[in-house]
Amino acid sequence: MHYHAAAAVLSVGDELILGQTLDTNSKWLSMRLLEAGVEPKFHMTVPDDVNAQRDAIIYLSRLVDVIIISGGLGPTSDDLTRNAVALATNDELIEDEISLTQIEAWYEARGRAMPHINRVQAMRPSRGQSIPNLHGTAPGIAATLRHDHRVCDIYCIPGPPNEMMPMFETQIMRRLRIDPLRNTYTRTLNCFGIGESDLATKLGPLMDRGRNPLVGTTASSGVVSIRIRYTGEASRSDAVRVLHETEQLAHAAALPYHFGNDDETLQACIVRLLQSKAQTLGCVESCTGGGLGALITQVPGSSSVFLGGLITYANTLKTSLAGVPSDFLDSSISKSGASVSRETGVQTPPVGAVSRETACALAQGGLEKLAVMHCLAITGIAGPGGGSREKPVGTVWIALASADGSLDARKFNCGNDRATIREWAAKCALGMLRFKLEGITARLLREQPS
Amino acid sequence: MHYHAAAAVLSVGDELILGQTLDTNSKWLSMRLLEAGVEPKFHMTVPDDVNAQRDAIIYLSRLVDVIIISGGLGPTSDDLTRNAVALATNDELIEDEISLTQIEAWYEARGRAMPHINRVQAMRPSRGQSIPNLHGTAPGIAATLRHDHRVCDIYCIPGPPNEMMPMFETQIMRRLRIDPLRNTYTRTLNCFGIGESDLATKLGPLMDRGRNPLVGTTASSGVVSIRIRYTGEASRSDAVRVLHETEQLAHAAALPYHFGNDDETLQACIVRLLQSKAQTLGCVESCTGGGLGALITQVPGSSSVFLGGLITYANTLKTSLAGVPSDFLDSSISKSGASVSRETGVQTPPVGAVSRETACALAQGGLEKLAVMHCLAITGIAGPGGGSREKPVGTVWIALASADGSLDARKFNCGNDRATIREWAAKCALGMLRFKLEGITARLLREQPS
Repeated sequence: MHYHAAAAVLSVGDELILGQTLDTNSKWLSMRLLEAGVEPKFHMTVPDDVNAQRDAIIYLSRLVDVIIISGGLGPTSDDLTRNAVALATNDELIEDEISLTQIEAWYEARGRAMPHINRVQAMRPSRGQSIPNLHGTAPGIAATLRHDHRVCDIYCIPGPPNEMMPMFETQIMRRLRIDPLRNTYTRTLNCFGIGESDLATKLGPLMDRGRNPLVGTTASSGVVSIRIRYTGEASRSDAVRVLHETEQLAHAAALPYHFGNDDETLQACIVRLLQSKAQTLGCVESCTGGGLGALITQVPGSSSVFLGGLITYANTLKTSLAGVPSDFLDSSISKSGASVSRETGVQTPPVGAVSRETACALAQGGLEKLAVMHCLAITGIAGPGGGSREKPVGTVWIALASADGSLDARKFNCGNDRATIREWAAKCALGMLRFKLEGITARLLREQPS
Repeated sequence: MHYHAAAAVLSVGDELILGQTLDTNSKWLSMRLLEAGVEPKFHMTVPDDVNAQRDAIIYLSRLVDVIIISGGLGPTSDDLTRNAVALATNDELIEDEISLTQIEAWYEARGRAMPHINRVQAMRPSRGQSIPNLHGTAPGIAATLRHDHRVCDIYCIPGPPNEMMPMFETQIMRRLRIDPLRNTYTRTLNCFGIGESDLATKLGPLMDRGRNPLVGTTASSGVVSIRIRYTGEASRSDAVRVLHETEQLAHAAALPYHFGNDDETLQACIVRLLQSKAQTLGCVESCTGGGLGALITQVPGSSSVFLGGLITYANTLKTSLAGVPSDFLDSSISKSGASVSRETGVQTPPVGAVSRETACALAQGGLEKLAVMHCLAITGIAGPGGGSREKPVGTVWIALASADGSLDARKFNCGNDRATIREWAAKCALGMLRFKLEGITARLLREQPS
């Protein structure tokens, strides 16, 4: 029996190769293949060029057991997947009568006659099969490429996701030959507040390449994920047990930075924690300009805990909306670069908008103004201008004021480009809140001595 | 002379192959390569497997002149791009002293010692070169693979986009060898408020495939870009002239939706227009939760015109912060689903948080509270819950109040998934403001009769 253990996903189209369209099919197909027990090994994308397609099919057929090809099944002259499969399998194209009837019926159901150019969509390699398409005019194609010691099955499906997905689910899934003795189970542990290198050091030999379950790490926008994957012949219950053992070890290594599993984002974790405690949150934002609120409200149902915020981008609004004393702020600087205390008449330099004092005042002002139980405040220098020797671009102060009277403020170095600084600032604020909600006392990555 | 005419983009990472992370690098790199005059021919993605990587490099090196590899340069044991390049080029890895110094300096600048495992990032093939990384610890690598009749250059860059993009722009671009007789000049016209199909219809025969300059359209997050590309042997001045002729025709077809060129985003256009008029802006956000403020403050220098905003996610804050009459809002609904007018004692159903009245009240409240010259307000149903027959998920009201006394409110259908709805809502708000600032009276895409 020839099982489909390893797969390749081949995407076809000039618009993908030229960078005009983002390929989301490969990710989706890989996820579904893996869940079904077939391991994706390669993605490849080729232009609308029949020879490039043919060569890619032949190359991949020597490496995997099944190739899923998406795209190039349309009716126009640049749709050449049919031809490429025929060339690669040394076959010729013939018209599939049932397909032709189905395409004609598709148009008829929409009150139109089939345009002549669509007739080509009924063509398939003579030794292959047509796969019906219930969501469009392009039938799929199944074919097989035989080498001396290997058989590779090829399934062609349309490129548009709304046709590709249902055809994969209803037609391709049941054609996949899953080795009943080869199961794949995965688990992802998401961490925040530690760098990828430090986490890998803590994981140590868990990350050995030969290990099963295999452990890897990926960093994306501040979140470091530990990916655990078991592949083998164990029964489901045994596989789940060994996966769980590795997960426990990884969890222990990642403490206290491990906040959630699989698809759970840091903001979703915060919403879950607040919901479980029935507590509310607000925010006061300067350099992030609304980005923290936008991040939290990505989470469906966040309205049960997130009430709102103040975007105090200009210093005047830090004072008028959040009650920051105006003599804290640079705008109150006198010509000599210092402010005069009303009480003593002595000149002292203002602490400035990016300071512990201002961050705390913003958080406390927000706590009151927004009538929330926790208020995060962010004030920093996102650049490219505005930095100084003492406060370089990337300096961010984050404060957390809570209705229990606690007040925490920390200084971070959030990087050196505007987008990164703003993204990290919002994430670090969530990291601080998570530590507060979980009763964790630890430093976060990028936190600075202050 | 060996020119870089054809390129391949090779992405490395289990997280990409397994469908856990969407590959956006290949699209970006292809776009930039094409603009530089190098034609992308293949994308390929391989797992963290040194043999698969080596084989892919060798395969692609026979087909193209230059391979850009992104990913696999991290410090952990699953980062194997260095090794794969050494294997493919029949070379051995050595430690690059300058790279090691730079990695140590990177950590030192952040007040930390370099973790031991990062030392491996200074390794490079002995006949290759290290490429400095100013945004992270992973240096890039340049190497060359020679076949009998072909030379293929290999450039390895880190996977995280915030390191990958600057390294490509500053280090790889200048290493590309562009054929001087094959000039490529591009121009992009960015439009908002019109659909891609409608714009294509207006462009008509300008979009013919055989045309040079070639005209194409790409839609991304609401902005439809008209891409114009000249490729050929014409002198720079001749090429610029024919490009300009096509640009004029495209501009005329895209009026009044064409807001800016090349890299100018809609938010950058808004900041430019406000700066030129010395006018200020604020915002009041409900369903976008801060996303509009975050979008505007992406633009460096936006602080000269954007003062801040109110995130009135909860209805209580719509009233307490922005002064929306509480009997407008659903929270004031009596058990019978209607509110009682204080004046007449007659029950009328409240207009609700998502209504023309509430949007206008939010915008007018913000205009006053934020002391700005224009205030945008957004209130809508982002879903997945909260929709009704009259106000389905995706319904968004946007109001614009200005210090000149004008008040405009429009209803939009912003799609059916939460992320899309929130993104479109913020973009449509900017679109309304642009029409106001430019004196344009036209409907925007997704605008609904109200």
